[in-house]
Amino acid sequence: MGFRATVLTLYPEMFPGFLGQSLSGKALVRGDWSLEAVQIRDFATDRHRTVDDTPAGGGAGMVLKPDVLARAIDHAAPEGDARPRLLMSPRGRPLTQARVRELAAGEGAVIVCGRFEGVDQRVIDARGLEEVSIGDYILSGGEPAAMILLDAIVRILPGVMGNALSGVHESFEGGLLEHPHYTRPQVWEGREIPAVLASGHHAEIEKWRLAEARRLTEERRPDLLAEQRGPSQPVTK
Amino acid sequence: MGFRATVLTLYPEMFPGFLGQSLSGKALVRGDWSLEAVQIRDFATDRHRTVDDTPAGGGAGMVLKPDVLARAIDHAAPEGDARPRLLMSPRGRPLTQARVRELAAGEGAVIVCGRFEGVDQRVIDARGLEEVSIGDYILSGGEPAAMILLDAIVRILPGVMGNALSGVHESFEGGLLEHPHYTRPQVWEGREIPAVLASGHHAEIEKWRLAEARRLTEERRPDLLAEQRGPSQPVTK
Repeated sequence: MGFRATVLTLYPEMFPGFLGQSLSGKALVRGDWSLEAVQIRDFATDRHRTVDDTPAGGGAGMVLKPDVLARAIDHAAPEGDARPRLLMSPRGRPLTQARVRELAAGEGAVIVCGRFEGVDQRVIDARGLEEVSIGDYILSGGEPAAMILLDAIVRILPGVMGNALSGVHESFEGGLLEHPHYTRPQVWEGREIPAVLASGHHAEIEKWRLAEARRLTEERRPDLLAEQRGPSQPVTK
Repeated sequence: MGFRATVLTLYPEMFPGFLGQSLSGKALVRGDWSLEAVQIRDFATDRHRTVDDTPAGGGAGMVLKPDVLARAIDHAAPEGDARPRLLMSPRGRPLTQARVRELAAGEGAVIVCGRFEGVDQRVIDARGLEEVSIGDYILSGGEPAAMILLDAIVRILPGVMGNALSGVHESFEGGLLEHPHYTRPQVWEGREIPAVLASGHHAEIEKWRLAEARRLTEERRPDLLAEQRGPSQPVTK
């Protein structure tokens, strides 16, 4: 059985969305992965099917009720379900390609999509939800973030991209951004492809690409280089 | 006329996707914003409608041809079109809520979605494309990233969320992650809502929330606090 994703949401009709198209859609049909969208509202118990309430202490917005969400989680991931439980949230730890690889190597994920002002902290604590952020910006809800997480995971599942990935250098491999790319024509609008790339000297080409990747990373993302140095090689005391 | 988005893509059928649902979908129908998806392949000139070619210098993957993409851009954003031209790319500068606000205050955006190994660097330079990254992970293409960017922009356009946003504290406001939320019931699975939130002392509640926001940010995102100190207040020399 492939990677098994269960998404808890107030908008199950948003899934699979673009994940049902292109290569991830074909992989879904083949059964390389599966996707179940669970309506949180189905676990409300009052006749108005209430899922949210006003924030304790006052303030704007609405908060997802702990009891309703916990019932939805317990249904979707009963005891013994070892899949990680994630909550898409701008308060979470930033998603990295390393975490994507870990998740893709596992059996699946239970993904809670927040809406309204937020989710009651007690259900996050009691059900061990791992808060995951896809970036430092605010979305309309957790659903678009969950789709991004799944897109990143699915494309590296075995078989999904076929040979398309083999040998391809990617950004963040080796902690560097990717070098610039060029293709024909040799001259376009008076701009030439760098001569080294037409030289046929494989070693020189690799050297140029690595130097360009380093230059771009230093220029745009010095934070990635700082992470690489890590605590074991302090630059200053 | 509202915010005008033009997306250049090899998969125009992926749009509007989830942007056509929920609040952003209603705003699209109302005309608070508009979305045009342009097929890059329509600007190929050979009979096979070729859009990509092998990378100069060798290697795996395919690179989007500069001539075809430039024709698509020139069509979508003719001279005098002042909208920023963005290229969704993991090599780009990380998207922030501040950049989202800037873009939302403008007249729109032309968004190029990369596929294959990458885009010829010369078209990035010649057409002044601003590379934007939504996070440090790899997606199946630029399309999901473009949807995230648009979701973040559209939700803050005037009128889109109505009063839903007014007075809501959000993550990254003031450079801090959001404080925890609670709602009824007062006791759930033996866990109580923090007493201060039921105290009715508004000033005490605000103090507690700010302290919690600071604690969470220190714990999870010390990088956000470091940014806030900024270069004008060096911690050490």
